[in-house]
Amino acid sequence: MDRRLLALGLLLSLPASADEGMWTYDAFPSEAVKKAYGFAPTQQWLDKVRLGSVRLAGGCSASFVSPDGLVMTNHHCVRECVEDLSSPKEDLLAKGFLAKTPAEERRCPKIEANQLVKMTDVTERMNTATKGLTGAAFNTALKKEMSAAESECATSADVRCDVVTLFNGGKYQLYQYRRFQDVRLVFAPEFSMAAFGGDPDNFNFPRFGFDAAFLRVWQGDAPAKSPDYLPWAKEGAKEGDLVFVSGHPGGTERKATVAELEFQRDVNLPYTLLQLAELRGMLREFASTSAERYRTTRSKLRAVENGLKALRGRHQALADPALLARKRQEEAELRKRVDANAQVKAATAGAWEETAQALDTYRRMLPEYKMKEGGDAYPSELFTMARHLVRAAEEQPKPNAERLREYTEAQLPSLRQQLLRAAPIPLELEEATLGFGLNRVRETLGADDSFVQLVLGREAPADLARALVRGTKLGDVKVRQALLEGGKAAVDASKDPMILLARKVDADARAVRKRYEDTVEAVLKRNGERIAKAHLAVYGTSGYPDATFTLRLNYGQVKGWDENGRAVAPLTTFGGAYARNTGKDPFKLPDSWMKAQAKVPASTPLDMATTNDIIGGNSGSPVVNRDGRVVGLIFDGNLHSLGGRYAYVPETNRAVAVHGDGILTALEHVYGATRVVKELRAASEDSASPAR
Amino acid sequence: MDRRLLALGLLLSLPASADEGMWTYDAFPSEAVKKAYGFAPTQQWLDKVRLGSVRLAGGCSASFVSPDGLVMTNHHCVRECVEDLSSPKEDLLAKGFLAKTPAEERRCPKIEANQLVKMTDVTERMNTATKGLTGAAFNTALKKEMSAAESECATSADVRCDVVTLFNGGKYQLYQYRRFQDVRLVFAPEFSMAAFGGDPDNFNFPRFGFDAAFLRVWQGDAPAKSPDYLPWAKEGAKEGDLVFVSGHPGGTERKATVAELEFQRDVNLPYTLLQLAELRGMLREFASTSAERYRTTRSKLRAVENGLKALRGRHQALADPALLARKRQEEAELRKRVDANAQVKAATAGAWEETAQALDTYRRMLPEYKMKEGGDAYPSELFTMARHLVRAAEEQPKPNAERLREYTEAQLPSLRQQLLRAAPIPLELEEATLGFGLNRVRETLGADDSFVQLVLGREAPADLARALVRGTKLGDVKVRQALLEGGKAAVDASKDPMILLARKVDADARAVRKRYEDTVEAVLKRNGERIAKAHLAVYGTSGYPDATFTLRLNYGQVKGWDENGRAVAPLTTFGGAYARNTGKDPFKLPDSWMKAQAKVPASTPLDMATTNDIIGGNSGSPVVNRDGRVVGLIFDGNLHSLGGRYAYVPETNRAVAVHGDGILTALEHVYGATRVVKELRAASEDSASPAR
Repeated sequence: MDRRLLALGLLLSLPASADEGMWTYDAFPSEAVKKAYGFAPTQQWLDKVRLGSVRLAGGCSASFVSPDGLVMTNHHCVRECVEDLSSPKEDLLAKGFLAKTPAEERRCPKIEANQLVKMTDVTERMNTATKGLTGAAFNTALKKEMSAAESECATSADVRCDVVTLFNGGKYQLYQYRRFQDVRLVFAPEFSMAAFGGDPDNFNFPRFGFDAAFLRVWQGDAPAKSPDYLPWAKEGAKEGDLVFVSGHPGGTERKATVAELEFQRDVNLPYTLLQLAELRGMLREFASTSAERYRTTRSKLRAVENGLKALRGRHQALADPALLARKRQEEAELRKRVDANAQVKAATAGAWEETAQALDTYRRMLPEYKMKEGGDAYPSELFTMARHLVRAAEEQPKPNAERLREYTEAQLPSLRQQLLRAAPIPLELEEATLGFGLNRVRETLGADDSFVQLVLGREAPADLARALVRGTKLGDVKVRQALLEGGKAAVDASKDPMILLARKVDADARAVRKRYEDTVEAVLKRNGERIAKAHLAVYGTSGYPDATFTLRLNYGQVKGWDENGRAVAPLTTFGGAYARNTGKDPFKLPDSWMKAQAKVPASTPLDMATTNDIIGGNSGSPVVNRDGRVVGLIFDGNLHSLGGRYAYVPETNRAVAVHGDGILTALEHVYGATRVVKELRAASEDSASPAR
Repeated sequence: MDRRLLALGLLLSLPASADEGMWTYDAFPSEAVKKAYGFAPTQQWLDKVRLGSVRLAGGCSASFVSPDGLVMTNHHCVRECVEDLSSPKEDLLAKGFLAKTPAEERRCPKIEANQLVKMTDVTERMNTATKGLTGAAFNTALKKEMSAAESECATSADVRCDVVTLFNGGKYQLYQYRRFQDVRLVFAPEFSMAAFGGDPDNFNFPRFGFDAAFLRVWQGDAPAKSPDYLPWAKEGAKEGDLVFVSGHPGGTERKATVAELEFQRDVNLPYTLLQLAELRGMLREFASTSAERYRTTRSKLRAVENGLKALRGRHQALADPALLARKRQEEAELRKRVDANAQVKAATAGAWEETAQALDTYRRMLPEYKMKEGGDAYPSELFTMARHLVRAAEEQPKPNAERLREYTEAQLPSLRQQLLRAAPIPLELEEATLGFGLNRVRETLGADDSFVQLVLGREAPADLARALVRGTKLGDVKVRQALLEGGKAAVDASKDPMILLARKVDADARAVRKRYEDTVEAVLKRNGERIAKAHLAVYGTSGYPDATFTLRLNYGQVKGWDENGRAVAPLTTFGGAYARNTGKDPFKLPDSWMKAQAKVPASTPLDMATTNDIIGGNSGSPVVNRDGRVVGLIFDGNLHSLGGRYAYVPETNRAVAVHGDGILTALEHVYGATRVVKELRAASEDSASPAR
């Protein structure tokens, strides 16, 4: 046996490293926590924290923090809503928002909140449906069965059901959520404070952002009841404290094959990074030319910059030869163990080879797929709505199980909400981004490509973008509503240029999607499932599944780290924020903070770093102590956490949260949000801690 | 023996694949050409073509095409000159340029032309100087000996001497050039025609660009004599014709180690690509806002887009698992042969490991190095000049051999020329790009980094860029001249903000440069040399060295290729250009071409593809037939040629040239450049073909 592999074998027989893991609530390792920290959550504790956790359908986490539907999350999770509620006259993103009464709470048209109420194992059902199938047939059967299970479960508009793939298909579960579609904004700070430090400080620590916001879920004409809320802690978190994070990590690839990681490093991440980098350059310059352009662009720009930095961090993690060497060793060890078990070996035959082959197919197809179906040719809200209208008209008449997944019954309520939101669409920005995409598709596929000629004809990209954006009426919500409700007849009769474009490109887009799904996605999924089952067979089920934007709980402690010999302390303070203020964006503290400086002790904690194993999607997650009480609000990770996509490194990977004390202090002394503070304090007093 | 390696061993024992190779003139494989094409160039033929070849110091190739100093090259090689000669009132880049008389020929301040007159082997001299040395000592000794050899040789201002590293240091040669510093513009077409098809068509074929220009070298008050010119061919090139390309391929890495290729793929190319992509997005948007901004930006934008596309092609070649697999096999085979020879094995011990280690060091240091010393923090012409002034003042008093290489005596004439050129510097663009760089350095190194704080203080990047560009007087050539001639005293006394910045950052920049040179560059160079010598020892010296922007000759034929089952023909025509015209940039033919349509037969060849093995730096190279007469002008390669950086693939790698017939036809019928046409025709008539 190779010595390196032997050493690795020993490593693998140890438990996952301290604090690593994004655990499902039905398999939380309470005993491991007890061993490490002397405290084991009970089932009652777990149920209470689970029901106090909230998922925001756009891709964030949150929590109930009062019995009257008050929800805490990040500012960056409600940024789009704040922008939707803004106008050229009232720039709420810049100045912040505070509802002084329930009546002043304003609806966020795109936000939907989900509370996980039930989890059911459906592995057998899915396996039965796909038994003996490969390729496209496997994919079709799986999707069909998923859709069927979901629509059986989603019996009313306030129930949402998703079949959740865990362990890459080693396990399937049906998650049932209580769905809140009337979500209103209660409080948001200034954008400049939520994102203090801007792109330079993003994913960095020490950090001084106040990335917090409050929402409330309503039912009918009143705030909804939320008896299973998380009460505020009696005491703030200190260095070394055991803390838990309950939230929805969006996605990890810790169980990916080496071929998949190499594909990310060499093909997928470079493609996306270059797209984002160029878009960033364009948007920054665009936004710099007028205050109005800045206002309509800053949110998109921030999202692009965040994505760029996050993906660059991932790419850099994969560019470190040590990480891939470790993954190669793990894979070699797994394959050795698989080979040693005749039955598992037979069931896994060819799985790694087929995976590599599918990725090579995808590599050749990726630009075409991303451009035509992924939408990189037309990065425009108006086009996206046109495509949804065209496709919804096409798909809705089909039996539910035969539709494209995003048009199944379970998805329709969110789609409808998205199409009918009243928020204004910034047309100048639309022209710029659509022109950008049309230029990209021509250079990516070539001027002689038939799809490019179909889209552009003899037009220049910028001219066509201008004509489309100025010609379309889809900016008017009534026009969209008429097309959505009018169905295929209305869409077919439409002469709207954006609808015409969406119709014109649809056959090509669907064709490449089908090719991708049959020759890439289905092969990766089936073989991912086979490898996952082999892993479960030889190592057992004691691990945690890769993240899938479903609810997970993890544990860790408030702790800094050593950055190349420099100790980074785990807590920052209000005093630190004042010291960092240069008066120039993005290091400019807003007036509210400047005025409050005398009222707040400089030593009050503002942000904190913890060892919790989180990733994008965890934004807005509550940090709770052993009493299940709120001591913080996750809003970021440090740069080292970006490699957490592929592996958790306990020495340096840190989650970044707003400290609970900082939240209460700022609400009270900076923002005068006494109504919210009172509600939080009352809820904290009323609540007994869950049984330990 | 592993079967794959065995198969590879057989492959390696065959000669290089047909048409592959960038051969030095002293080792041209005439016999191989004879075997393949039935024609062997004689020594006289080789000398004549070599002396007819020209290098443009900025990074292009060219040729003498008349006895009176007339030089042919690409439009994109003179683009900066055309721009320097333009003004807001007279946009020569847009409308083209034609000197009707010698007196109208206008000096290109930045262009210098070199003609290779002598090559001397100095391998022994360099080896003696570095014998037994490693690391920084190796590097210092090598640089010192190179500088010494160069200044001994460069006895007057019209002689330029470079020590040329071949075979990664397996061989060193001293190249002596005749240097022409008075180079004048004779003819340039419209930018829109030179770059017809723009970025979408760049590196593509079929192609319809007219990327040609003519210069003339002058001596004193008269055109210089150039008896060794390349006469125009009597007949144009046809499909299947044997053709030679004589020019200066800039750089290849075909002999690089696998670790070096992986470093390019994972670290260096991603870093540079992201920089270029973001800059491109910014510049496109910047240029779109006014005609004047477009005029001052288009050239830089074109260069950025060209670099982006070229590097993306390289990255994609490396992302193909097949290429790296082939390189891994080649390296394994080489190491096996090295291990089989005790003496070579001892001389090469640790070479691959040390290379990988140095690259890992570089990976951690790269952003810092690129920002501080590479200049990514301050991408500004004004800053670059400030740095040169500061460093020239510092370096010139030192003994020649101890200076930074770019300030040795051999380099000073070009540096002086660069600093004292009269061309105006577009200040708005300077503000934009400098702001871009200052923003990048902050986000790359972090707001808390001491260098970032040194540069920015509490300023915002855009504000600081504005203050620097508006405050500096370095845009005035007289101010630069005074500082250059005033030396250290003048620079130290200067209060110019750009000079102050360049002085402030110099210690940090020099420190990281020294660290890079000692721990990365020196280690890579020494071990590259050891591996190269091992290669020569076990395989012999029959190959060609990697490209190093020195004169090379190669052979091939006029030939299309098969693009995924679609045959691409090798010639395009004027008729094709008219068919491709959409009237919209970048597919808009200029008026001159529209007016000439009736005068030119549609079937006249315009561009052509050949199998010649070229790479960036070959731009402007003459294509000659077996008579040593001009039949074309290299200006590009197809997309497949971009992977030629690492390996030549004969099936698809193609050079792209303007066809000789197309050049004469356009000069005569589109541009009425009768003076140039007469000179070319007379030179063609006067000349006997060189002996075959």
